[in-house]
Amino acid sequence: MSSPTFEGASCPIPIRDYPQVLLAHGGGGRLSQMLIERMFVAPFANPALEERHDGATLRINSPGARLAFSTDSYVVSPLEFPGGDIGKLAVHGTVNDLAMCGAQPLALSVALILEEGLPMEALWRIASSLQEAAAAVGVPIVTGDTKVIERGKGDGCYICTSGVGLVAEGVSISPRRAQPGDVVLVSGPLAAHGMAILSVRQGLEFETTIVSDTAPLHGLVAALLAAVGDELHVLRDPTRGGVASALNEIAAAAGVAFQLDERAIPVADEVRAACEILGFDPLYVANEGKLLAVVAPAAAEAALAALRSHPLGAGAAIIGEVRAEPAGRVLLRSRVGGTRVVDMLSGEQLPRIC
Amino acid sequence: MSSPTFEGASCPIPIRDYPQVLLAHGGGGRLSQMLIERMFVAPFANPALEERHDGATLRINSPGARLAFSTDSYVVSPLEFPGGDIGKLAVHGTVNDLAMCGAQPLALSVALILEEGLPMEALWRIASSLQEAAAAVGVPIVTGDTKVIERGKGDGCYICTSGVGLVAEGVSISPRRAQPGDVVLVSGPLAAHGMAILSVRQGLEFETTIVSDTAPLHGLVAALLAAVGDELHVLRDPTRGGVASALNEIAAAAGVAFQLDERAIPVADEVRAACEILGFDPLYVANEGKLLAVVAPAAAEAALAALRSHPLGAGAAIIGEVRAEPAGRVLLRSRVGGTRVVDMLSGEQLPRIC
Repeated sequence: MSSPTFEGASCPIPIRDYPQVLLAHGGGGRLSQMLIERMFVAPFANPALEERHDGATLRINSPGARLAFSTDSYVVSPLEFPGGDIGKLAVHGTVNDLAMCGAQPLALSVALILEEGLPMEALWRIASSLQEAAAAVGVPIVTGDTKVIERGKGDGCYICTSGVGLVAEGVSISPRRAQPGDVVLVSGPLAAHGMAILSVRQGLEFETTIVSDTAPLHGLVAALLAAVGDELHVLRDPTRGGVASALNEIAAAAGVAFQLDERAIPVADEVRAACEILGFDPLYVANEGKLLAVVAPAAAEAALAALRSHPLGAGAAIIGEVRAEPAGRVLLRSRVGGTRVVDMLSGEQLPRIC
Repeated sequence: MSSPTFEGASCPIPIRDYPQVLLAHGGGGRLSQMLIERMFVAPFANPALEERHDGATLRINSPGARLAFSTDSYVVSPLEFPGGDIGKLAVHGTVNDLAMCGAQPLALSVALILEEGLPMEALWRIASSLQEAAAAVGVPIVTGDTKVIERGKGDGCYICTSGVGLVAEGVSISPRRAQPGDVVLVSGPLAAHGMAILSVRQGLEFETTIVSDTAPLHGLVAALLAAVGDELHVLRDPTRGGVASALNEIAAAAGVAFQLDERAIPVADEVRAACEILGFDPLYVANEGKLLAVVAPAAAEAALAALRSHPLGAGAAIIGEVRAEPAGRVLLRSRVGGTRVVDMLSGEQLPRIC
């Protein structure tokens, strides 16, 4: 499943002839075929893609395992930002959705919607990034699709990635499993992705550049499962809507309450400063490389240790607990000692964050 | 897997409050949740969706089977056309890609990219159509995603569907299996989808309305496999680029030639007339409910009978054969007796046909 990296590789489509993506690159004819062969099939080399079929077939030899299946589209603006780009985000996001089901990822698909006029070199950077991210995760991109829409009907590039993975026998992760007494952990400091995007979009400059936390979390989940097994009840990656929306959704699904401790919730200083300047609550800002875990109380310390022993969980913390009442609610004990309701985000905080 | 149909059901989002899709409907907060719950989870009701997880998990009990995995995005314009709409197309297209791998579909995912300002009732028609098409196929939509982009950055609605299916042990469908002597069949008359879209887009009126052939082909494939088993070598649905591009791709993959007989290729009279008026060759026009099958010569008649005995294959025909030379080429014996090369489409014939 390993693949060559693209460090320094130049665009395989002749830029002199095709400086930009044309409608014909999505028409199903010769130009489509050249684009797909040179930009995707050759660099992404793997046996499934080389079949050049309408789909991929995969052999699975895991009796008792369940299949996990997930999809997400990515419309992030801008396409490139500190710490990542739409390609990395598209691979990590789908790997993470599979990981949140307790699955180890098996294969990814990529469907691109390109706007006529997208610079061919920008597409090459996106294709390279998709491939590098997939290779780093160790999961092949086995099938795909490319469509081109007219100039003015898109915004450069939208990507839809789907993924399949396997959930080992005995693993049962579900929002419904949160129960009173369970402990809530987060794998590291919050709100970096949302604030990184917002900073670039608004042309803001802080002393330190805020870098997106985009990262694949399947390894962190494997470490957690190895440490606490079935005492791991719920996993969720707090993307759009942030930790607040994710916990509200779990509270509603399980019919429980969450009690959080604001002092325990990790946020990096520069991110907190940016949030304060711009009037954002870090609990509502998107993350792309963090997970929330709800575990049985007896497993809390082992879960924390497992997270902290992994590079992507070094900043993990216990941030609260599950209670029976008030069912469906998320409460926060603030720094000054009061308690407030952390409601679901009601409008749009940051459009096109992922 | 059966589901209620939507005949007459009214839009579950209050139109008075939300006549159009807002950016906040994709923001991950309360409005996103309302849209997803009411428009997708409740109507699409199935246990996987009701888990409200980041992905779906599926139990698979088919030792020896391989997993098929496919993805396609849909950017068809207009969103509704005679015989179908983007929702039906998105379900059928992905079911067909799985079917062309010899798989029976197991589950679908749907990712929507909506443009701010899309009328809520138009979205409801699309959601209803997705659900009706999936219910008719008997395959659940188990996971999904909804993003909203700003007004002017899209064209109403783009859809990406992915699918997983199972390929039974012993089934081996691949473009590489085409071999000299094999017989080529098509399941019915060509070019209806492309000409239906073009007619609407250009505001053309013919004596008869040309209706898209969009249809799910998994049943037809099951009938073929039951009739001829492993003598079924290659399947392909000739969508973008039509029969010409599909056969050129197979010829290149297998290193063989195709010899077609123009008189044997079925095209409905009104479609042929429209093609002639507008200067299109039906061999290059997209189909969305037809398949090409390459079978061993001894199985040709049985394959034809199996296709014709199915409602979606009533107009099936044997249209040519596989030869060794000239490798990689598709040749056509014309009505008047000459032979010409049917090359791959070199530019864009019809943009946004699917």
